[in-house]
Amino acid sequence: MPDTEAPKAFVEASVPYRVPYADTDQMGFVYYGNYLTYFERSRNELMRKMALTYVAMEALGLGLPVLEAHVNYKNAAHYDDELLLVAKLVESRHCRVRIECEVRRGDEVLATGYTVHACMNLKTHRLERLPKELQY
Amino acid sequence: MPDTEAPKAFVEASVPYRVPYADTDQMGFVYYGNYLTYFERSRNELMRKMALTYVAMEALGLGLPVLEAHVNYKNAAHYDDELLLVAKLVESRHCRVRIECEVRRGDEVLATGYTVHACMNLKTHRLERLPKELQY
Amino acid sequence: MPDTEAPKAFVEASVPYRVPYADTDQMGFVYYGNYLTYFERSRNELMRKMALTYVAMEALGLGLPVLEAHVNYKNAAHYDDELLLVAKLVESRHCRVRIECEVRRGDEVLATGYTVHACMNLKTHRLERLPKELQY
Amino acid sequence: MPDTEAPKAFVEASVPYRVPYADTDQMGFVYYGNYLTYFERSRNELMRKMALTYVAMEALGLGLPVLEAHVNYKNAAHYDDELLLVAKLVESRHCRVRIECEVRRGDEVLATGYTVHACMNLKTHRLERLPKELQY
Repeated sequence: MPDTEAPKAFVEASVPYRVPYADTDQMGFVYYGNYLTYFERSRNELMRKMALTYVAMEALGLGLPVLEAHVNYKNAAHYDDELLLVAKLVESRHCRVRIECEVRRGDEVLATGYTVHACMNLKTHRLERLPKELQY
Repeated sequence: MPDTEAPKAFVEASVPYRVPYADTDQMGFVYYGNYLTYFERSRNELMRKMALTYVAMEALGLGLPVLEAHVNYKNAAHYDDELLLVAKLVESRHCRVRIECEVRRGDEVLATGYTVHACMNLKTHRLERLPKELQY
Repeated sequence: MPDTEAPKAFVEASVPYRVPYADTDQMGFVYYGNYLTYFERSRNELMRKMALTYVAMEALGLGLPVLEAHVNYKNAAHYDDELLLVAKLVESRHCRVRIECEVRRGDEVLATGYTVHACMNLKTHRLERLPKELQY
Repeated sequence: MPDTEAPKAFVEASVPYRVPYADTDQMGFVYYGNYLTYFERSRNELMRKMALTYVAMEALGLGLPVLEAHVNYKNAAHYDDELLLVAKLVESRHCRVRIECEVRRGDEVLATGYTVHACMNLKTHRLERLPKELQY
């Protein structure tokens, strides 16, 4: 990127989420695997904000299977917490997207992480260029 | 069925299952919704035993969406329990199957219940006659 | 109930819910077991409306383990659907509560069902009388 | 570690797992979040092999909450696949454990990853030294 070009703002979206009993485990915390579903919920809102819902993307014959996922757990979430699930598009080029996610409770960050996705043709299972709405 | 014909034995199948932490909730028991997945695990074995796995059924273009599900919870299952998941085909006619399920821990019955399924064409979403392997 | 007494109105509560990809299965519908989590989400709102959240109830040393659950599946829910999850307290006496639930998408009812719960002391695991907020 | 000392062998354990319909999503693959439950299933076997099940650990008043989790998705797992879930203890010192996991289908590696855990006192929620069975 040339020095003279202003950096693009990251696209960010968030969605509130109330924790059901189903998400907890016997330690009394939200089970660690559920954070990947939380990340997905925020990604869905991110795509809606970018004017290409995942439903619309599948209608184009494209999917975004996950190549990589990472979570850092900082503080436990509990039953009935009202969380804020946040996603930010940090990289989106060619056939590849990287999204950073956060799980927040008020001012507190409970978890951070990211997912990396490939843009795949759902019929041929081959990589394809990202639709322009998702190119960053 | 003519009077002189002996009643058919019920087809029954079972599969062992070790409870992960993921299945528990903060009450320290297996979350009640997970029993429907337990029922499914035993149904998969039942169909395998009847020589028509659900994979093979889908390859024929047929599915068995659930119309009705019921669970009676008698005793709680816990983390790391080794359960036995049991399914029994009790009715299977035309487009409809009824399967009774049990979740056992040793001699103890933890839950009983049943599911009712329709035989559906996966393309047209219309009802179809059950494949002969599943007719009882 | 004497004829002269007006019937009590049922207490009802509902909560919107957006279906994540996580809830779907390869048939392209919401997996049948997830409806029991949907029922729970609406029960949580019902208790909040009755001025005794389940969190507050556990703080009193009481829980509401499920004795029985039933679901009738009428129409499939899909990924990204915005559902309305509805719960109605239809019976609540002594140590026992019965709650009827519905999953709606707009005017369409996708599923109906109910759960029956016991009021249990979380330490002794014995039955207890329901707190007055939940008595109907 | 002095040069003269032979490197310790890694402790490894594995457990077979049959994929239920519940684990799939509408892309027809196992949903990405479920791999963290698969990792947990293999960790449970690893601890059993190290002569300190997680049940026994909780009985000692200790837990192993997850600090970090990572998954690399290489090939999709499908409904009814018989997988092998593998865990290997690669680091275990003071209050901290690192476990590497693999999900295999026959000779094929479907996913790799790891989890990092803290040893926590379940009452005080403070860090504690790992029990000797888990020290590597």
